[in-house]
Amino acid sequence: MPGTTKPRCLACAPWPRTWKTALACPGSFCTIPPACKHVHGLFLTFEGPEGAGKSTQLSRLTARLAQLGAPCTVTREPGGTPLGTRVREVLLDPALSIDPLPEFLLYSASRAQLVANVIRPALARGEVVVCDRYADSTLAYQGAGRALPEALLRQITHAATGGLSPHLTLLLDLDPALGLARAARRGQPDRLEQADLAFHARVRAGFLALAEAEPARFLVLDATHPEEALAEEIWAAVTPLLDRA
Amino acid sequence: MPGTTKPRCLACAPWPRTWKTALACPGSFCTIPPACKHVHGLFLTFEGPEGAGKSTQLSRLTARLAQLGAPCTVTREPGGTPLGTRVREVLLDPALSIDPLPEFLLYSASRAQLVANVIRPALARGEVVVCDRYADSTLAYQGAGRALPEALLRQITHAATGGLSPHLTLLLDLDPALGLARAARRGQPDRLEQADLAFHARVRAGFLALAEAEPARFLVLDATHPEEALAEEIWAAVTPLLDRA
Repeated sequence: MPGTTKPRCLACAPWPRTWKTALACPGSFCTIPPACKHVHGLFLTFEGPEGAGKSTQLSRLTARLAQLGAPCTVTREPGGTPLGTRVREVLLDPALSIDPLPEFLLYSASRAQLVANVIRPALARGEVVVCDRYADSTLAYQGAGRALPEALLRQITHAATGGLSPHLTLLLDLDPALGLARAARRGQPDRLEQADLAFHARVRAGFLALAEAEPARFLVLDATHPEEALAEEIWAAVTPLLDRA
Repeated sequence: MPGTTKPRCLACAPWPRTWKTALACPGSFCTIPPACKHVHGLFLTFEGPEGAGKSTQLSRLTARLAQLGAPCTVTREPGGTPLGTRVREVLLDPALSIDPLPEFLLYSASRAQLVANVIRPALARGEVVVCDRYADSTLAYQGAGRALPEALLRQITHAATGGLSPHLTLLLDLDPALGLARAARRGQPDRLEQADLAFHARVRAGFLALAEAEPARFLVLDATHPEEALAEEIWAAVTPLLDRA
């Protein structure tokens, strides 16, 4: 029952999952006191190269969640907080030269601030959090792409996130040549988009290796499929999690 | 003999240490090929709270090194590179709220870029590098001050610096109340200077504990002593290293 002041953590007390049964939820859905440490929301991430249609599919998904009345927090990396926005400006500035290691540390700084101040609080309120890029991008871009040691990336990422992993990661897979052509049509390429094709091929392989290692968490989507078909595929993967969460 | 094109790494070949015997060195002093991996410069750092007189003593020291004709690179943290300058703006912005962990990661990003692009190349050229703050500030401010786990700080700092430690660290020790009063007289306090007195007391204790743990590397100076006396004390500690380097 929305409006009740009882704790709603699934692990602490029965959950009146109104929005999970597709009824509209009027207003704020969270009454869990800060003392509750359980994660009981749903954490979804979109991954894939520039130009694969992440933003489009993210908008479609969150619009559909809103129709259900599901309380939803939409965010992105790097960014999502005042600090993250400033770090994003630095990372995407084409005029700056940034080595792979400091680049990774900047992403991690933005991520640590985002997880602590946006993602974890929203999950604690029982919301659906949809994030445009997360730790998998680090492993694909800075690991597979820029050849930083995976152990170092995983270690620091674990520190930055406290080990928080998405329930479901939607990977929009696309041939790098196609993705770059799409991105270029949208205007001036940023620093990342200027990197060469071989780099983007390594990144793609990195993403696919991550998906292969964790098939239960990943849904790999062919980004050349029509927008509508992809949206349906994503929705079919998300709805069971809403019912089950 | 300045001007020779032979490698000058102490570990590779005899070093014509003209500037180290107090003679003027005309122009560039480094002819070591990039292939030489030995560190053969001298790395000095200044540490201590705001208002302790680090900048003053750093200027005095580098002026004196210049009089000897010693090739010298002066830099600071955070900063010292185009990336570091941008990160510095973010870190010192009083309008931004930054959690301890992302704060530490931002410092580490600036440090990684600085070590790889400024400090190591200058040391490889056989220069004296003088840096205003370095890794000890992280252990004192983010460790002792903000209570981040020391093991995590040391691990990530080791990754960011490749383990590069100063030959000599000049710690200007000062009662926090005095330091803050001095800094306040210089104008609007930045985000760090606004932190409370208890925080600065922990930072001071952190610096002193580091100095106690590595007495051979640290020279602890009483920052209430007259400027001239401190400069002499510092010079007395630096000159044997110049002769010995």
